[in-house]
Amino acid sequence: MDNIFNEFFNVKTRKEVEKIIETALTPLEDVIVPLHDALNRISAITVLAPEPLPPFSRSTVDGYAVKSEDTFGASEGFPAILTVTGKISIGTLPDAPLKRGHAMAIPTGGALPEGADAVVMVEHTESPDPSLVEIFRPASPLENVIQAGEDIKKGEDVIMKGQRIRPQEMGLLAALGITQLPVTKTPTVGIISTGNEIVDTDTEPMPGQIRDINRFTLKGLVERSGGKSVFLGLTPDDEKAIKDTTERGLPTCDLLLLSGGSSVGIRDLTLNVLESLPEFTLLVHGVAVSPGKPTVLAKVGGKLVFGLPGHPVSTWVIAHLFVTKAIHVLQGANLDDTLKWERATVTENIPSAQGREDFIRAKIKRVEGKRVATPIFSKSGIISSLVVANALIRIPLNSEGVYKGDEVDILMLI
Amino acid sequence: MDNIFNEFFNVKTRKEVEKIIETALTPLEDVIVPLHDALNRISAITVLAPEPLPPFSRSTVDGYAVKSEDTFGASEGFPAILTVTGKISIGTLPDAPLKRGHAMAIPTGGALPEGADAVVMVEHTESPDPSLVEIFRPASPLENVIQAGEDIKKGEDVIMKGQRIRPQEMGLLAALGITQLPVTKTPTVGIISTGNEIVDTDTEPMPGQIRDINRFTLKGLVERSGGKSVFLGLTPDDEKAIKDTTERGLPTCDLLLLSGGSSVGIRDLTLNVLESLPEFTLLVHGVAVSPGKPTVLAKVGGKLVFGLPGHPVSTWVIAHLFVTKAIHVLQGANLDDTLKWERATVTENIPSAQGREDFIRAKIKRVEGKRVATPIFSKSGIISSLVVANALIRIPLNSEGVYKGDEVDILMLI
Repeated sequence: MDNIFNEFFNVKTRKEVEKIIETALTPLEDVIVPLHDALNRISAITVLAPEPLPPFSRSTVDGYAVKSEDTFGASEGFPAILTVTGKISIGTLPDAPLKRGHAMAIPTGGALPEGADAVVMVEHTESPDPSLVEIFRPASPLENVIQAGEDIKKGEDVIMKGQRIRPQEMGLLAALGITQLPVTKTPTVGIISTGNEIVDTDTEPMPGQIRDINRFTLKGLVERSGGKSVFLGLTPDDEKAIKDTTERGLPTCDLLLLSGGSSVGIRDLTLNVLESLPEFTLLVHGVAVSPGKPTVLAKVGGKLVFGLPGHPVSTWVIAHLFVTKAIHVLQGANLDDTLKWERATVTENIPSAQGREDFIRAKIKRVEGKRVATPIFSKSGIISSLVVANALIRIPLNSEGVYKGDEVDILMLI
Repeated sequence: MDNIFNEFFNVKTRKEVEKIIETALTPLEDVIVPLHDALNRISAITVLAPEPLPPFSRSTVDGYAVKSEDTFGASEGFPAILTVTGKISIGTLPDAPLKRGHAMAIPTGGALPEGADAVVMVEHTESPDPSLVEIFRPASPLENVIQAGEDIKKGEDVIMKGQRIRPQEMGLLAALGITQLPVTKTPTVGIISTGNEIVDTDTEPMPGQIRDINRFTLKGLVERSGGKSVFLGLTPDDEKAIKDTTERGLPTCDLLLLSGGSSVGIRDLTLNVLESLPEFTLLVHGVAVSPGKPTVLAKVGGKLVFGLPGHPVSTWVIAHLFVTKAIHVLQGANLDDTLKWERATVTENIPSAQGREDFIRAKIKRVEGKRVATPIFSKSGIISSLVVANALIRIPLNSEGVYKGDEVDILMLI
């Protein structure tokens, strides 16, 4: 059975689908945002430092700015004794250079006077009167000093094109006086739910009907991935209705998610609709991933369209693996996807079939400093398992399963 | 030196500070949000299912609804032959019960007719004419069926008070027809930057001045933790200015972050201001965490106030550890903080002093399936290290350091 299915669908592996998504999409255009709105956006340019950081040599401690040579050989028993010629205020530049045998009191962050090359921590000094200081330890050149440009040189790459702006990137841009940034446009992701049995959330289902779930899980996943979701509508399993909604919605979005059609006849319906649209290219028809095998991926009118299984659990797994990826490519994000995987020890044997990569819902706990993954074995239709789960266990393509105590890859979902 | 410092500040450990934050704060009041705005919010109530899920018994495959006893003993050689009395449409309830010896075609998600207790997958059947079906495998009772209420029973806890709404919680709430949810109010976090040397981002610094960094790193961290940030102003190292800004800002926010004052004299300034305000209680004066030791935590007028070190790296570490925690407590979030820690192997020896918990900026890579952490050894003032880092390595309180190849706890910052 499995072979026939594989042949019929010509299923693609996860890695193949990822490559196809990378090839099929190009990043969206740039928009300029103020720095305070740049959090989590993707930089559309490589940012070069317009000036050095720090702009002047600074002390990293409270103490005395000195010429290091004046302190060589100083010790508790034989302190170096220097003349204190002033006190540097924070936020101003010392007005006179430091001469041999002199020292100036300096606070953390204070600008080093010309002629000084080190700072002695106040803890290693004693000042019997304001005009003198005893130095009990030698300072090496540049000790307790950050030199002008030591952090960042003028013209240095500070943020790469494709880099995500985290809190610390905001801080660095602020330090350099960069108050706005070109970022990639937020991808607009259209969502269409299909299914004769599906009704809106605010509708009382008639016997045999259920409310739309995918609309909300997809919306949440799109937003968490950096996209903006637009719900385009709920249609029955009717070729014309799906086609009308798709044609109307496609121009308004950068990526389209059609979910529905888990039964064999209806799967064809989604594909028929897509095939009937202009500029259609089938990219993927079936993935070697469980759950989610009957996923369709096509290019229609220059846009990427996902035909997601109607099943909420399958749609959720596929969206995690591939919709997230598509949004990142549209953002031009240069993210290290390998970092999203963790390792955990499984608490039970998990059987698996070869030829597909299994993603098993799991509950992760930390036991004695290690992650432990308990698989949630429930029928695929059980939605509540998604809420119990905080991770997916990955069983590789050519594995027949894993044993209790094995270490596995997991994808955290917290 | 360290002992004197410890005694003077009476430093608290990270765990102690976490407990103090938990004790000092109570969750904010509830607000009701529509389901489509509930992503990442914290549920203010335990949600009980208003109805069972699924509301009716459903097939999980395409096939034939049967009485399982009619298929017992069926095999490839001796199929059970049943009369097909109809085809169930998705989204409707079958109008007649199933009788002995009968079967009905049923799609995935279709409602099981009364009298049927199992579904045989279409792959295990053959239908020589529409009125007959041959069954090649016995079906056990409830095979390929999700019973009404099997997923969720009416009245069952589906979401706990304090649970974060992820995409899958949105989906589950939608399935149950819950279109709005009481969540905890988003905490408003006031930010005040202080320092004579600090100027606004859009200002050209004069010699000796630097631009405000903490305002932006704190804003980013607050937003990522689920808070809303409000910048209350930048003040010089002046008691009156800090006091005025604090008094004016405090009533407008749920949590206040004062950053600045890294030099010894100025540290006292922040504390003096807080002490001079009504309803002041000092909670923490110094933490056994590096960087970030001179952190102050106080309750002023019923609000929690952080006196963060002015140093951007220290402020960033302390905000990750404690400000995030405070925002979660204000949200009433019941989050498993242990899950944010990962494990990685360090590539170099890292020395550390006993009596403090060190957080070392690090670059994490995945090598042959394992996380490997390379510490970034740079002076504490180097801001660019924050951008290079994607994790913090934790060196425990009573450790003298770790050796190359040791496994350590890390906090991912991606």
